[in-house]
Formats: sequence, structure tokens, C-alpha cells
Amino acid sequence: MTTSRVPVVEKIMDANDQVAQQIRQKLDSHGILAINIMASPGAGKTSLILKTITALSSKYKMAVIEGDTAPVTIDADKVLASGVPAVQINTGGECHLDAMMMSRGLEQLPLEQLDIIIVENVGNLICPAAFNLGTHKNVLIASVPEGDDKPYKYPNIYRGVHALIINKTDLLPYITFNIDYFRQGVEMLNPALATFPLSCKTGDGLSEWISWIENQLNTRKAK
Amino acid sequence: MTTSRVPVVEKIMDANDQVAQQIRQKLDSHGILAINIMASPGAGKTSLILKTITALSSKYKMAVIEGDTAPVTIDADKVLASGVPAVQINTGGECHLDAMMMSRGLEQLPLEQLDIIIVENVGNLICPAAFNLGTHKNVLIASVPEGDDKPYKYPNIYRGVHALIINKTDLLPYITFNIDYFRQGVEMLNPALATFPLSCKTGDGLSEWISWIENQLNTRKAK
Repeated sequence: MTTSRVPVVEKIMDANDQVAQQIRQKLDSHGILAINIMASPGAGKTSLILKTITALSSKYKMAVIEGDTAPVTIDADKVLASGVPAVQINTGGECHLDAMMMSRGLEQLPLEQLDIIIVENVGNLICPAAFNLGTHKNVLIASVPEGDDKPYKYPNIYRGVHALIINKTDLLPYITFNIDYFRQGVEMLNPALATFPLSCKTGDGLSEWISWIENQLNTRKAK
Repeated sequence: MTTSRVPVVEKIMDANDQVAQQIRQKLDSHGILAINIMASPGAGKTSLILKTITALSSKYKMAVIEGDTAPVTIDADKVLASGVPAVQINTGGECHLDAMMMSRGLEQLPLEQLDIIIVENVGNLICPAAFNLGTHKNVLIASVPEGDDKPYKYPNIYRGVHALIINKTDLLPYITFNIDYFRQGVEMLNPALATFPLSCKTGDGLSEWISWIENQLNTRKAK
């Protein structure tokens, strides 16, 4: 039953990669840096995006694409309230964003005016990893209360990312989380991955993440 | 692209439901109560199962089926260490258990000797909701650090469950979690759902959950 799905899924993936390639070309022609944020439900994707907007939106022109599995605009409304354009993509129950959805989202944004687009993927530690959206950087948020064994249990998503955030470090005093064990798991899957322990609640560690984004912008401009 | 998948997915679902029906008949013929536990990664599925084993395994014969997306036996090893038989199903990257996997798991258990089988589904708040495993009760674990907006954002999984656990209540003093807002969201999707706020860490609230399981066993025996 599972195996009967494989050929269809492969075809979808090919089509997805083709659209992702077109998206990348479009982003590059406008000089936009696009970042795809993935995480479990409740790891802090929206919180991180809001903090990033606060830090960078006076210096760069930003927009957000919000992926949701249900037709609720809770996250998109929060972004709009921060003064940054947001497009909501309701996947209609689907468990991830794909490049076609991303492409439709981009059509609703004023690309010629933007420097940074942040994509908030659907909350899911498995499926989003398999769909290239044409973004330049894929970022994973792990969160302290999820536990230190997640790299071992959900390896695929750790393999494909360019940066890792460990959010909710403010909860470390109240939770058993062995950061060495966690980091060993990550190192095995994605050696020397840029990792940012931080707390969106207290702001601790955020500046290193913000510098990383600015470095990505500067590296691209220097090319 | 997404729509081209629909007919195939529907066929898979039909086949899944047929196998689920056979599973249910097999479980009933052995007088076994089977419970499917679903949750996000890190919400506390394994912790709840271990606490349930501690409370009930001297009185009832129990076994666990562990669904994992990767070939790691972290959770299965914990269950085995508690003295209860555990079967691990590695989904090979798939984001949920289906009835065929469940059926293969059951083949490895001594059904004639068992009273309760607990299934730990893959950590995912979206996909597992769509696959009937033939279990009698589907249980969802929400966890306080995930946030109070999850019923609004991931409604499908809330609609289909028979009980809801709110785990990690020990973290309530350190996290903004509006329990009334959370409960309103649940009530809208699944009115009068049996709900158990508890902490696997401190043990608070666990006895109500344990009583609920025993009630399910007694109700079935009375039939």
C-alpha cells in the first residue's frame, strides 16, 4: 500500500523541484533573500519571525508567507500587526508547503520592493523537509520542551537545514534537556551546522541569529 | 499537483479502512482494548505510556506498539525496560502509522495473553488523524509549551479523538497559556471531550486518566 504511492510521489517531487527552481530565479532577479522556517507545532516559528521583524524591518523591506493547515489567520494577523505584509497560504489540510503554493504566495507580494521574505512552514517535523520551496536558506527551530532526543528521532529534517535555532532556553531550569546529547545528534546528521540557542521570550541569544541573517544578505550582495 | 494526488489517496484510505476493520475484529475476538496515542513531537507520548504502564501493568497484561519515522529504538527501549512487550514499527520516513503497519505490529504480539495495547503514533499533529488503525480509542496529547492556540490551528486531529490530555501542567507558572481559550477551541471542534490536564513529570492529574482507561475496560467487559 505504501509502496504503491512511490511513483506518484516521485512525479510530484520532480514537478515541485522544477517550480522551486523557477522561484529561486525570480527571487534572485529581485535580489531577495528567502528563508524557510520549519518546526514542530508550538516551537516558536511565529515568535521568532516577529522578533526578526522587530530587529530588521527598519533596515530592510520584509514580507512573510504564512503556511497553515487550517483557514485561520492567527499567525498572519500577528505579522500584519507588526506592519509587515503577510500572505496566508491555507494548505487545506495538507501537512506541508510545496513550491506551487509558495509560487502562488509570491504572486501576492510586491517583489520589486522587498529585501527579505520569511516563509513560515506548516508545523510539522517530517513532511516539510521533503519539499524544496526555492528558498535560499532552510532553518529549523527545535525547542527545549520538545526534548533532547529529537535529532535522533526526526533525522531527515535536521539533514537538510542551513541553520538551527534552539528556542525557549528560558525553560532550561525547569526541564531535563541534555544539550550535549542534543548537539551530538545534530553533529552526526549535519556537521558544523550554525546553531543559535535563544529565547524569543527573554530575547537572550537573538542578536546572533539576527547577525546570521545580515551575513546572508551581505554575502549575497558581495557576489 | 496537489489535486492529482487525490484519487490515489482515496484508494489508499479505502484499503486502510478495510484493514482497520479486520484489526478491530481481531482485537475484539481477543477482548483487547487498543488505544492510539497521537501528539506533536515532544508532547510526552512515551512519558504518558510509561506512567500508564506503571499504574496498570500489575493488574492488566499490556503491550506497546511504537511508531517511529526513523530506525531508532529510543522509545521502544524505554518501554521494554519497564517490563512490557514492545514492537517497534519504523515507517521509513512516513509521517504516520497506517492500518497495514499496525497489522504487522500485531502479528508480533501474543494477543491471546493481552488486555491492553497502547499504540504510540509518529509525532505529528496532522497526518496521523487521517488513518484509522482499528484501535477502540484515539487519544491526543497537547502540551502546555506548545501553546493555547493549537486547536484552532490543527483542528482535524482534535475532531476525531475520544480523549484529550493536556500534559506538562507543571510548566504553567513559566508559560503564557490561557486554558479557557484552549478549551473553547476544543469545545468548538469536539464538544464535551473527556479532557485530562496532568503532568507526567510530577504525577499530578494522572489518576483521572488511569481511571478513564479502567472505565473503558469495564464498559467493554459489561457488554
